Amino acid sequence: MVNLTPLEDHVLILPIGEEQVTASGFILPVDEKKKPSKGEVIAVGAGKMLDNGSRAPMEVTVGDIVHFTQYSPDEIELDGKKYLVVKHSSLLAIEK
Amino acid sequence: MVNLTPLEDHVLILPIGEEQVTASGFILPVDEKKKPSKGEVIAVGAGKMLDNGSRAPMEVTVGDIVHFTQYSPDEIELDGKKYLVVKHSSLLAIEK
Amino acid sequence: MVNLTPLEDHVLILPIGEEQVTASGFILPVDEKKKPSKGEVIAVGAGKMLDNGSRAPMEVTVGDIVHFTQYSPDEIELDGKKYLVVKHSSLLAIEK
Amino acid sequence: MVNLTPLEDHVLILPIGEEQVTASGFILPVDEKKKPSKGEVIAVGAGKMLDNGSRAPMEVTVGDIVHFTQYSPDEIELDGKKYLVVKHSSLLAIEK
Amino acid sequence: MVNLTPLEDHVLILPIGEEQVTASGFILPVDEKKKPSKGEVIAVGAGKMLDNGSRAPMEVTVGDIVHFTQYSPDEIELDGKKYLVVKHSSLLAIEK
Amino acid sequence: MVNLTPLEDHVLILPIGEEQVTASGFILPVDEKKKPSKGEVIAVGAGKMLDNGSRAPMEVTVGDIVHFTQYSPDEIELDGKKYLVVKHSSLLAIEK
Amino acid sequence: MVNLTPLEDHVLILPIGEEQVTASGFILPVDEKKKPSKGEVIAVGAGKMLDNGSRAPMEVTVGDIVHFTQYSPDEIELDGKKYLVVKHSSLLAIEK
Repeated sequence: MVNLTPLEDHVLILPIGEEQVTASGFILPVDEKKKPSKGEVIAVGAGKMLDNGSRAPMEVTVGDIVHFTQYSPDEIELDGKKYLVVKHSSLLAIEK
Repeated sequence: MVNLTPLEDHVLILPIGEEQVTASGFILPVDEKKKPSKGEVIAVGAGKMLDNGSRAPMEVTVGDIVHFTQYSPDEIELDGKKYLVVKHSSLLAIEK
Repeated sequence: MVNLTPLEDHVLILPIGEEQVTASGFILPVDEKKKPSKGEVIAVGAGKMLDNGSRAPMEVTVGDIVHFTQYSPDEIELDGKKYLVVKHSSLLAIEK
Repeated sequence: MVNLTPLEDHVLILPIGEEQVTASGFILPVDEKKKPSKGEVIAVGAGKMLDNGSRAPMEVTVGDIVHFTQYSPDEIELDGKKYLVVKHSSLLAIEK
Repeated sequence: MVNLTPLEDHVLILPIGEEQVTASGFILPVDEKKKPSKGEVIAVGAGKMLDNGSRAPMEVTVGDIVHFTQYSPDEIELDGKKYLVVKHSSLLAIEK
Repeated sequence: MVNLTPLEDHVLILPIGEEQVTASGFILPVDEKKKPSKGEVIAVGAGKMLDNGSRAPMEVTVGDIVHFTQYSPDEIELDGKKYLVVKHSSLLAIEK
Repeated sequence: MVNLTPLEDHVLILPIGEEQVTASGFILPVDEKKKPSKGEVIAVGAGKMLDNGSRAPMEVTVGDIVHFTQYSPDEIELDGKKYLVVKHSSLLAIEK
């Protein structure tokens, strides 16, 4: 289990991607050429605070495979892994 | 049935278009020249969260043919098909 | 009756305009030179969702002649006719 | 009575201005050089819809002489007269 | 008493300033070089409409000397006097 | 006591700073090189009006030493002193 | 204990970072090359005022190690230490 708790409506995501090997054997970075991206939900924030004082529910849970789009997602490196922090509103769909 | 569940007020759409063949036989990409676009609704999100804590109802259902306009819709490829993810507010009309 | 149902606060409009014939007999496109534009309301959306969960009433009905202003209205072609899709907030006045 | 009913918080205004005659007898267009402008209220919309579902009251009535400021007010020509359509929030003051 | 009634959250102000005479006797326009400006409140609008349907109270009354800042305040000339129309949110402080 | 009452969520501040003397004896203006700035609270406005009709409480009182950040704070000169007018949202912290 | 009380939804943070020594022995400034940053929470504001008159709860407490992202965080120097002032919405996650 990762020791990171996302805040507000942030979702912690471990990116997933098929590595692409070019003819010359060079491995292109994952997701370099495809947008939006795909990843596994690792941790979920409490949700966005609404003006009526309650929180908007988060529609994803740990383990979900999500597609998301974000121009420049924030990265957190911990224990040798690179996580992305994405807002709930940047999530597009859950893949089942 | 597609294994993608859109989040918030997103709608998953399979684009529809008449392929256009030029005199030289070259097939122009569908919808390259016409905006807005048209497609079939494949899956529908839960709806936009309002500040009073309820969700705005989604006015489309699976199978609807919709016209929509979006500068650069997000694309998700799955099982060889290319889907578009469009926000409900970018939908213009249902064609009956 | 047109088979298009506008969504949210969109209004489907059939543009009206006096064709202008120049001295050389060339017909200028309608409304090319005059802004705002005028049209007949063909179909009306359900209305904009307010933050209290109700919809703002649409102030126009089918058959109304409306003046509207919109930088670049969306166009939908169906059965050989070219419709405009305009938001309610872009409507200026009803002509009686 | 004019056959135009403004929508939402729009106000229909007939512009007023002292024509300015230059030394050479050329009549400068009214209001070309002075901002804000002045006019007579001809018709009044129902008012802006608030998020609580009620309308903000319109503070002007037909016949009022108002000062307003708007970068590029929309114009509607009808029966040989040129009306301006101005939002209530662009009105500055009533002249009594 | 001036015959101008400000609308919404507008305040009608008569600008105050010490005229500045240069060495050559040329009188510089008041407030040309100093920002923010100062003036006397001549008339007060009803107040900004809040989303709950009530009005935000206006914190100034006729006769108050106020400091305000506004990039380009609207001017209304009436009976040979030049008034400024400033929004309540552009007022900084009352000088007692 | 200063004769200035700030309006809405404005705070009247007397800037504090250590004057900096360069090797050549030239005194650099206070705070010219350091952002954010520091000052003493001289007077406090009534608070920002919320959409529910109440005011957000002001978290500072007269005499507080505050750190604030504002690109170009408004200045009011009175009785030979130069005050700054800063919005409450531009205040960062109280120094105790 | 630091004598600084953050206002509204500001959080006072003492930045943490591993100093990086280049081959030539030059020490690169901490966090110069990595975004987002990491720090220890030193003090927490009361929380953002919502439109319903209550405050959004702050999800961090003194002593938390947080990851945050902010283009240009405000700095306050006190007693020889350099603190950052970051809004709660710029916090990404707590590291446990």
